[in-house]
Amino acid sequence: MSRQPPQPSALQETTLSSEGVFEGRFLRVWRDTVRLPDGAQAQREYIKHSGAVMVIPLLDNGRVLMERQWRTPMRRVMIEFPAGKLDPGESWMACAARELREETGYSAAQWAYIGGINNAISYSDEVIHLAFARGLRPGSAQLDAHEFLEVFEAEPAQLLEWVRSGVVTDVKTVIGSFWLDKLLGDQWPLAWRSADATD
Amino acid sequence: MSRQPPQPSALQETTLSSEGVFEGRFLRVWRDTVRLPDGAQAQREYIKHSGAVMVIPLLDNGRVLMERQWRTPMRRVMIEFPAGKLDPGESWMACAARELREETGYSAAQWAYIGGINNAISYSDEVIHLAFARGLRPGSAQLDAHEFLEVFEAEPAQLLEWVRSGVVTDVKTVIGSFWLDKLLGDQWPLAWRSADATD
Repeated sequence: MSRQPPQPSALQETTLSSEGVFEGRFLRVWRDTVRLPDGAQAQREYIKHSGAVMVIPLLDNGRVLMERQWRTPMRRVMIEFPAGKLDPGESWMACAARELREETGYSAAQWAYIGGINNAISYSDEVIHLAFARGLRPGSAQLDAHEFLEVFEAEPAQLLEWVRSGVVTDVKTVIGSFWLDKLLGDQWPLAWRSADATD
Repeated sequence: MSRQPPQPSALQETTLSSEGVFEGRFLRVWRDTVRLPDGAQAQREYIKHSGAVMVIPLLDNGRVLMERQWRTPMRRVMIEFPAGKLDPGESWMACAARELREETGYSAAQWAYIGGINNAISYSDEVIHLAFARGLRPGSAQLDAHEFLEVFEAEPAQLLEWVRSGVVTDVKTVIGSFWLDKLLGDQWPLAWRSADATD
């Protein structure tokens, strides 16, 4: 995910100063003073985020493992792929394996990394790493105390129809569904690696 | 985008109180105290956002209109479809037409709404409405003072390759690219309406 187009200097902003302006229990907001390409100054506010990982778990029966979870900002239950925040220093695969195990009980024999996506580029530095998992074996979920979610299996064709019709609206899950469609259509092959491989 | 699966009460959180805890120049953070399904209480923090609209502008030459823009939280230039925030009370089509005209100079004869996506469901209530535009006619861009972006034309096949290879990572643009792929593959037809239609 590192290849980027040239960075036209006509667009670049230069950060002159940066300060934390809100430290909540979960959210941290920073404010930068920047110099614009025309020399004027402006301010930008954004959340500093530790990053996250989402897993698209491919079951041997052809279905994918998904979750229903209440999301307070949305005031409703959302359909999502398993995901969670990176711990400090944690690799994407360690985080993916941990979240998959904690939330669903499953462990995976193989992983394929597909890239990172940026979900709120005007006000958050978050990157969500996306990975496929296969060779799944069930176990016992280990939800955090006071964490509530339902795990279920979905047919890929059904999932894509949920994306089209607006039942699934969570961006990471929408993008994962499209990648799944490309994978199953033999258009976008993956580079699989063993779960035992070191990073 | 309104059809939703049943809301299992086993997952629902009830908001007991809600207070603004940060009012920045651009960002507003709220903190809710919620009752969890097991009766315990917890706190949630999230950004209240006015919502946004993104346009996938289909040129008569088969290309799509795109932008390069510096995004301070990401510290780099991002490739995006034209987008902007909803003004209070503004319809998606009015906002889409306004942002397209301001940022690129183009106006559209026809629009097709495809739905809303939620880009940060754990910490923002933002919805980004997505729409296709066609019958594009050029005009003069009217950027806000101190707004800098480059407009360019992209081939749909090139754009999809940028998504696959990680050159395009902005979630709204990634999802728009996949929808474009479905449209051009005659898999997901659109319901077009005239730009003159009232909402």
